[in-house]
Amino acid sequence: MNYNIYKERLKKCSSLMKKEGLDVLLLAKPANMFYLTGDGRLCSFAMITQNGEVALGVPKTDIEDVKELAVFDHIMGFENEVGMIHSIAHYFKDFEIDKGTAGLEYTFLTQLMMGMLTHPHAKPKEISVKDCTPIMSELRLVKDEEEIQLMKDAAAVGDAGMKAAVESLKSGMTESTVAGEAEYAMRELGAEDFWRSYVCSGPRTNIAHGHPSNRKIQTGDLVMIDIHPIVNGYSADICRTVCVGKPDKEQQKAYDIYLDAQQETIKKVKSGVEIGDLEKAMHIILQDAGHGEHIFGPPIHGVGIEFEEAPLPPGHAFFHGEKEAPPLPANVVLAVGNCGLYTGKFGVRVEDTVVVGKDGPEILTTYKRKLEI
Amino acid sequence: MNYNIYKERLKKCSSLMKKEGLDVLLLAKPANMFYLTGDGRLCSFAMITQNGEVALGVPKTDIEDVKELAVFDHIMGFENEVGMIHSIAHYFKDFEIDKGTAGLEYTFLTQLMMGMLTHPHAKPKEISVKDCTPIMSELRLVKDEEEIQLMKDAAAVGDAGMKAAVESLKSGMTESTVAGEAEYAMRELGAEDFWRSYVCSGPRTNIAHGHPSNRKIQTGDLVMIDIHPIVNGYSADICRTVCVGKPDKEQQKAYDIYLDAQQETIKKVKSGVEIGDLEKAMHIILQDAGHGEHIFGPPIHGVGIEFEEAPLPPGHAFFHGEKEAPPLPANVVLAVGNCGLYTGKFGVRVEDTVVVGKDGPEILTTYKRKLEI
Repeated sequence: MNYNIYKERLKKCSSLMKKEGLDVLLLAKPANMFYLTGDGRLCSFAMITQNGEVALGVPKTDIEDVKELAVFDHIMGFENEVGMIHSIAHYFKDFEIDKGTAGLEYTFLTQLMMGMLTHPHAKPKEISVKDCTPIMSELRLVKDEEEIQLMKDAAAVGDAGMKAAVESLKSGMTESTVAGEAEYAMRELGAEDFWRSYVCSGPRTNIAHGHPSNRKIQTGDLVMIDIHPIVNGYSADICRTVCVGKPDKEQQKAYDIYLDAQQETIKKVKSGVEIGDLEKAMHIILQDAGHGEHIFGPPIHGVGIEFEEAPLPPGHAFFHGEKEAPPLPANVVLAVGNCGLYTGKFGVRVEDTVVVGKDGPEILTTYKRKLEI
Repeated sequence: MNYNIYKERLKKCSSLMKKEGLDVLLLAKPANMFYLTGDGRLCSFAMITQNGEVALGVPKTDIEDVKELAVFDHIMGFENEVGMIHSIAHYFKDFEIDKGTAGLEYTFLTQLMMGMLTHPHAKPKEISVKDCTPIMSELRLVKDEEEIQLMKDAAAVGDAGMKAAVESLKSGMTESTVAGEAEYAMRELGAEDFWRSYVCSGPRTNIAHGHPSNRKIQTGDLVMIDIHPIVNGYSADICRTVCVGKPDKEQQKAYDIYLDAQQETIKKVKSGVEIGDLEKAMHIILQDAGHGEHIFGPPIHGVGIEFEEAPLPPGHAFFHGEKEAPPLPANVVLAVGNCGLYTGKFGVRVEDTVVVGKDGPEILTTYKRKLEI
């Protein structure tokens, strides 16, 4: 572990905390803990002080494992939920934090988890709480060289997973087994895990979140495959739509329009661009082709530790607890092509993971973009 | 779709709502929507009135798909987050619900989602909100015959997935590829999807939530495999621990103790038993064998639409927003063996999906329980 990377991140975190008036962070989201400490896992928490001290609470079973993976100044194991609450109280006392503001992850914590972390036996009464999502997103926005390399590795695994799925396709297969081909290949090639796969076919390509079903694929069906490998903690996001058999004219036309919109939008990806302008660019091409009513969801989003993270276009950002993103600096990583074109009868979508370069895009996912296979 | 099943469920739901003083439910958790309407998906909501009327809001792309799957009286498509908020407002107005109490899922909604569903443009000011988790858990607690059959199907797929994973095991494989073998087999055999798989090996078997890593398995390692297929909407939960090569005496002894504790606990599963007493039974055997300090997590939990749901033992139930479970009626389905025995050097765990029968347990997951393979 490169200890200095985490010390740098914590330093930047401290300065953002000061700016936002946060005296302490109380994190429970694995992705955020992973970014700041090198380890993120369920049923754990990280308390980060404004001085950059890191205190972890983890299941008592996990202490040795976490010690090997995480940067920390303090670590405690707990036995159960009551123990977790007491560990939080212990750290507040230890750090002598008994007033001020604590940052919590409003975009991750359920009402119930919120209740645990702010339980009267956990949090001193005079500490108020506030969402720290925008701070964590700002910290994670620009990827360093090592992160970009990890995402290249993830993208290569995504490409190989897509290849395996597309090449396996034949009528009679279920959507679920197509997902299985992609996932199996991704694990074989180095993904330690993946985010939930989306595979849908035929009329189901028209739905917004096509989780795989046992529908049998038929000749002439479109199949939409959206996969998200995790390799050494970093993700990629790739979606392809292909036709089993020869596509008809309507399918081909919709596909060509969508692919054109996606590719033209990717061309505009470079440092200084506004994510809202990228969204507009993609929307306008689809609208001009008569598909203004056939779009759903943000066409662009960030990729990193999560396959879907900040930045988001302005309207969506607001409802996801995010501040409006700045003009994009170099080394932000985006997924371009998330909105889809849904005709009612079927949908098409092509999505790629793209690095915002100083002078233009660097496309990380490269599997061929072709409807006919 | 058997329309009557859902009408019956909605009738029971109405009577629970009256008992708990809830005028309306505003659900967003797919598992709960699936139970009451036959369809549950992300980025959607279901409003259920005390009269049993069902109003759905879904992405505009999904209307036709939902119409085929769900029982509903009203359905609206929305374009984006603002549209979702307006659909909620529309239904409140349509149903003339402008005061009283709405039930929301505090164990599912993030702070942010809570903010959207209770947005001043969504929810009338004079409606207060309250957690409806306990109502939904009470509704879903006892499985009907069809549900039990679906869980038998899921358990058979879980058995086959476990067989594929265990039979693939050899030193040099990564934990991730072992998970891949199980998942691939489960999809081939009819799982439309699965909940995240846990595979850990060697010293990593000692951690509480062993998500797969790229650690290479070595001869002499224990490997813990925990998988959760979803078949036609219902889940099973099975965990096995096996040794690659010949187990040493310490490994075998710990395994034998854990398996004995699990099997003895399963023997006590029958209608009328208290879940807290099952927990105690399992704890006592582990404690008496000198492993009282080596337990983590609830040894028992419910299984159904989710692989981990109510009922939970009393202490855990409280922190998961659940009421204390009643003495278990017949046809509750449990996973027994969730706590593990963590020695510090390694962990062992054996878990099975078990139906609470009138006179005793019916064990649904049957793959052999043997450390040496």
